[in-house]
Amino acid sequence: MLYMGRLARAAAAELAMATTEQKNAALEAMAAALEAGTEKILGANAKDLEAAEKNGRDAAFLDRLRLDEGRVAAMAKGLREVAGLPDPVGQTIASWTRPNGLEIARVRVPLGVIGMIYESRPNVTADASALCLKSGNAVILRSGSDSFLTSLVIANILTEAMKSAGLPGEAIQLVPSVDRQAVGFILGGLGGAVDVIVPRGGKSLVERVQKEARVPVFAHLEGNCHVYVDETAPLDMARDIVVNAKMRRTGICGAAETLLVSRAAVDTHLTPIVDALIEAGCEVRGDPDTQHTDSRVKTATDEDWDTEYLAPIIAVKVVEDLDDAIAHIDEHSSHHTEAIVTNDEAAAAAFLARVDSAIVLHNASTQFADGGEFGMGAEIGIATGRFHARGPVGVEQLTTFKYVVRGQGQTRP
Amino acid sequence: MLYMGRLARAAAAELAMATTEQKNAALEAMAAALEAGTEKILGANAKDLEAAEKNGRDAAFLDRLRLDEGRVAAMAKGLREVAGLPDPVGQTIASWTRPNGLEIARVRVPLGVIGMIYESRPNVTADASALCLKSGNAVILRSGSDSFLTSLVIANILTEAMKSAGLPGEAIQLVPSVDRQAVGFILGGLGGAVDVIVPRGGKSLVERVQKEARVPVFAHLEGNCHVYVDETAPLDMARDIVVNAKMRRTGICGAAETLLVSRAAVDTHLTPIVDALIEAGCEVRGDPDTQHTDSRVKTATDEDWDTEYLAPIIAVKVVEDLDDAIAHIDEHSSHHTEAIVTNDEAAAAAFLARVDSAIVLHNASTQFADGGEFGMGAEIGIATGRFHARGPVGVEQLTTFKYVVRGQGQTRP
Repeated sequence: MLYMGRLARAAAAELAMATTEQKNAALEAMAAALEAGTEKILGANAKDLEAAEKNGRDAAFLDRLRLDEGRVAAMAKGLREVAGLPDPVGQTIASWTRPNGLEIARVRVPLGVIGMIYESRPNVTADASALCLKSGNAVILRSGSDSFLTSLVIANILTEAMKSAGLPGEAIQLVPSVDRQAVGFILGGLGGAVDVIVPRGGKSLVERVQKEARVPVFAHLEGNCHVYVDETAPLDMARDIVVNAKMRRTGICGAAETLLVSRAAVDTHLTPIVDALIEAGCEVRGDPDTQHTDSRVKTATDEDWDTEYLAPIIAVKVVEDLDDAIAHIDEHSSHHTEAIVTNDEAAAAAFLARVDSAIVLHNASTQFADGGEFGMGAEIGIATGRFHARGPVGVEQLTTFKYVVRGQGQTRP
Repeated sequence: MLYMGRLARAAAAELAMATTEQKNAALEAMAAALEAGTEKILGANAKDLEAAEKNGRDAAFLDRLRLDEGRVAAMAKGLREVAGLPDPVGQTIASWTRPNGLEIARVRVPLGVIGMIYESRPNVTADASALCLKSGNAVILRSGSDSFLTSLVIANILTEAMKSAGLPGEAIQLVPSVDRQAVGFILGGLGGAVDVIVPRGGKSLVERVQKEARVPVFAHLEGNCHVYVDETAPLDMARDIVVNAKMRRTGICGAAETLLVSRAAVDTHLTPIVDALIEAGCEVRGDPDTQHTDSRVKTATDEDWDTEYLAPIIAVKVVEDLDDAIAHIDEHSSHHTEAIVTNDEAAAAAFLARVDSAIVLHNASTQFADGGEFGMGAEIGIATGRFHARGPVGVEQLTTFKYVVRGQGQTRP
């Protein structure tokens, strides 16, 4: 494992100097190689699926694990999309000239080596490799054991394509083992060889990574996202946003989990919104005020305010006003994404300023919490930490910078 | 300690919403209060000095600890300078509109609570408090035991001035104990109440913080800075830069510690530069090639290439060419600051791109590695980590951002 780290570090140094053309050519080669290797990938995937079924994995799990021709083609398409993104490396973020003539520039450089720890989605192997390559980083991949054979075939195809494009194959390395100890080594940073870890998977994986990692982590533990609707919100807009925020896809981190409604909007807004949610197939769990409006509303317990359902269930609470809504969010938020629906500009401004989450929205669905929707291209994850990357983590967020200073012989007085 | 953390967290939330005018008024009140409290500060400082002398502290240590009227006035002046800096909080770093009409802005917000762990310089109490306040952060200060009484008086004065200006006094808290355990509690993050730790002091302090901290750290362990001179460098410029980089102030982290000279420049550049260094009072330790040019050059051992002298001593080595210089720097650099002196634009571009340090300079002294010299105002430290803040850490680097998204009712398809 330490040797892998050293190889990755050396490959990262080489990759940091690669041109945009070289990197894009490699991405194209990788996409073509995945397409050409479809049969081999699906063969390995069939073995993984068989073993997972034997191990009693459920249908949702098997669906995440399963590849078919369409999904392999989608992976290849994803690689080509990353090739189409602007190259962040070498971009000048800021520059200025000092009175003494020194020209100072803050220039983007790759982070170095990314440790990617993921579970059963084998496509992460290709997606993460592409984003790391475009941003000039080497990646050490640690696939979940259930998708190991599939990931191994994909990683080997990508590595060979990298080499054929003249870039170091060691820039993409899959840990050749499903040993759980391997995760511990990566969390320890492989003797200084790993700069940041990105976990992708269930809450217990992310929890372990956040707790044990000795290097920075880009992650979110959960997305307990809130929508607050006040009495000035246009009813149709509020209803559409709440139903979309909850029900468009219930399994993503930007899905709304709690709806807060101001007391002044109980008569006008709460009833039709609850009705629309239930009509859309959502289970509504409410506080007494909410239950009072519709007999189909179940009882919310204290636990509901802290629960990320990732399912067609929503907790609904009547709050006194904006301050009360913000106080509730402060107490229960996972600092991921929160939205206010209102026509009161002052209330919107206060909400956007005071709510301390990575993403705050006014009159839009929380399901927009996504790098693609932000126009950042593909994302490797979403971060709720306060450092370096916050919100969607795309190629730009996988870089750091250095100060490049050009002088004409200046010495410091 | 945990209670201090909770108070700091609450104060940080309040401070995040403070206006620039409020913060500047508080900084002015703090400056005036320090001036008015000079006698009290010097009284406490006399006790600290007496105890430190009894404990056998050396002259350099006592000098760092000692305050006089001029130094207190300089602290007050520093507070006013921070008041004069632009307020980073609320600045829009980037903004764009999506095809669906969503307006996305990346807006600066404070980091939260800064843990400041420092040694014997009591002025850090005021400097760090001012930078944290301006950037909207609460600070928990842990003063070294030798300067504890002085720091306590200063912190109390600052806290009272904060309150008199209508801002929460708990935004500046000094750990009321010199117990070494207190450092451990802060390194643990005070139950999630500390967002980042900034250590200021000797290498052993920084080493402990980097090793044990469970939250991010802005720091540099050392500044083993290099200057590389090649045969195309104008001799006068090279000599001036090398002597300035080494000798202007030998005790700062941006001071040069190793000089590399290309073999082609041995006859033309090495001899006069070594001569100028020795004339300036510098001890020169060289490899055999360097020793060959001047009998006063002592022998450099392997250890010298990894030593941050912080003293009038320099290690000098003849390298074959640019690649050899970069390879030496790769191996021995602390990733702080490195400079090249050359008239060869291609060599300069390669050096600036390939050397992986927070600051890389062309034809300028490494002693410019400083927030003030960069035009960023005062700095709380210099970071060599790759995350979030790299290089000088000023008020801007003490902030993070959030995404503020304004819609007109958008739902995600």
